[in-house]
Amino acid sequence: MAAVPSTVAVVGLGLIGGSVLRALAGRYPAVGYDTDPGTRELAAAAGHRVPPTLGEAVAGAGVVVLAVPLPALPPVLADLAGILPPGAVVTDVTSVKEPVRAAARGLRYVGGHPMAGTEHSGFAAGDAALFAGAAWVLCVEDDTDLRAWLELAALVTATGARVVPCTARDHDRAVARVSGLPHVLAATLALGAGDPLSRALAAGSYRDGTRVAGTRPELSAALCEGNRVALAQALDGEIDRLVEARDRLRGGAGLRDLFASGRAARELWEAARGAGSDVDLDPADHDLRVALLDLGRAGGHVTGVQLDRLRCWRPTAG
Amino acid sequence: MAAVPSTVAVVGLGLIGGSVLRALAGRYPAVGYDTDPGTRELAAAAGHRVPPTLGEAVAGAGVVVLAVPLPALPPVLADLAGILPPGAVVTDVTSVKEPVRAAARGLRYVGGHPMAGTEHSGFAAGDAALFAGAAWVLCVEDDTDLRAWLELAALVTATGARVVPCTARDHDRAVARVSGLPHVLAATLALGAGDPLSRALAAGSYRDGTRVAGTRPELSAALCEGNRVALAQALDGEIDRLVEARDRLRGGAGLRDLFASGRAARELWEAARGAGSDVDLDPADHDLRVALLDLGRAGGHVTGVQLDRLRCWRPTAG
Repeated sequence: MAAVPSTVAVVGLGLIGGSVLRALAGRYPAVGYDTDPGTRELAAAAGHRVPPTLGEAVAGAGVVVLAVPLPALPPVLADLAGILPPGAVVTDVTSVKEPVRAAARGLRYVGGHPMAGTEHSGFAAGDAALFAGAAWVLCVEDDTDLRAWLELAALVTATGARVVPCTARDHDRAVARVSGLPHVLAATLALGAGDPLSRALAAGSYRDGTRVAGTRPELSAALCEGNRVALAQALDGEIDRLVEARDRLRGGAGLRDLFASGRAARELWEAARGAGSDVDLDPADHDLRVALLDLGRAGGHVTGVQLDRLRCWRPTAG
Repeated sequence: MAAVPSTVAVVGLGLIGGSVLRALAGRYPAVGYDTDPGTRELAAAAGHRVPPTLGEAVAGAGVVVLAVPLPALPPVLADLAGILPPGAVVTDVTSVKEPVRAAARGLRYVGGHPMAGTEHSGFAAGDAALFAGAAWVLCVEDDTDLRAWLELAALVTATGARVVPCTARDHDRAVARVSGLPHVLAATLALGAGDPLSRALAAGSYRDGTRVAGTRPELSAALCEGNRVALAQALDGEIDRLVEARDRLRGGAGLRDLFASGRAARELWEAARGAGSDVDLDPADHDLRVALLDLGRAGGHVTGVQLDRLRCWRPTAG
């Protein structure tokens, strides 16, 4: 986007931060930092610039990527208060956006969330290709600085991710539905079939439905508790659907409509990867904020950022 | 088991019946039958004995395996009324056992359910190895003829399956938990994430959790509606667990205990395939009925039937 790319400071060099640092190598001047000296050594040994203090890491940075877990964000934001260069754009990578937005008030902040990860953690597990093809949310709010947003969108597309624009509120609601809820359902399904006879008879549908119950409990809990308002709402909806199914069974009615619409929804998800078209947005459009939110709400994303245009993809309405 | 194996008539030559016929070839004298002439031709062309009428198929049979879908069972049972050889053992392969038990009253009937299948159907999709390693429930009730049960257990282990003994009631309850419930949850999860933004952000946990929502709706509906009493109960339990999780989130509490116990249940399922020991039961034991039900309730199964002993496997208590 910018003629001269900003220096990027990646704070927190676990799986995500370590992958961001690797993905930007050669594309952006980038600096890494982690509170753990061993992690800093690993990253330095891998050829990255890793100063010994947070202050040195962010000095001169045009973009600061906070790649620390949710509970570590408030203290890091407090540490940054006095040392952040004026005008620096701050973003994060945590799985919930409304609480972080509140915590980052006063900064030139754009909430971010790459929908990528593996079951591994730590710098060594990082991978320059982790974000290739993944969705990466960048939040658009009424008060979002769109120049900052575009600068981040350029950076995110440079990692190979597609940028999904949406509000923090819409993000949290969607993530509750596609990530928090599946984690809760996997755990409750596994618990419901906890007797030995059920386990002896369990096969394919149990295996798929409980797979994510194998996640480390502290990770699932952090994901869900960080997004408790939206997840409680998603659970309201799920409970309603199950009550309806149960009452239909008790009332002698059928579940064919439920299964037909569930299958249609699942097939729409599979199909949406293919059925759509490339469109351009004008980064100078005075309605850009509205156009971006409309794109995200339709299931579309930004694939590339150029000085005179935003290259986008928009699914065929389904 | 018996010195001379009985002739087996397999009625219904779809995926399951066709696979049973193939799996028994060379081990039992077996005859197949299907109401569809094209299916009979296919099976005959594959080298099986396939008489043109149900009467000829079951004449002389010591065992009749009803491999027809649940809705077709009552008419087939009615057709068999006058023509079943005296003393013939009747079993079925449908996914619900209490309603069939009621329909088969008066016959020398043992309910059966092989926990095997693919997304394909029809005789051509059949496979002699379909049951290798799969659980195959054979029901044990207060009034079950244990000689008939043992004869079927020998036949089932000859297909490569492991025989899980349990009551129809316990079967239906377990199947509701490990099969009906996962199908309902996959459909409701897919529906809950039906908006384009959610679909755009959906990844691994959504993919796994909704996989079985891709099943043909009429199959999922038949599976669930056939077992409506037990599935409604399983849904009661699931709704309770979700209400508790939602209330904890709304009340500011955590979900770590839920995820820890869900993970433990899932890991117990994975581990139970390995941790156990071989034990023998005596087929002449006058407490055999109790011993079999105890084995099934503990998550164990019968692996082989010999004249003087039943070879069994029992998991280590977990």
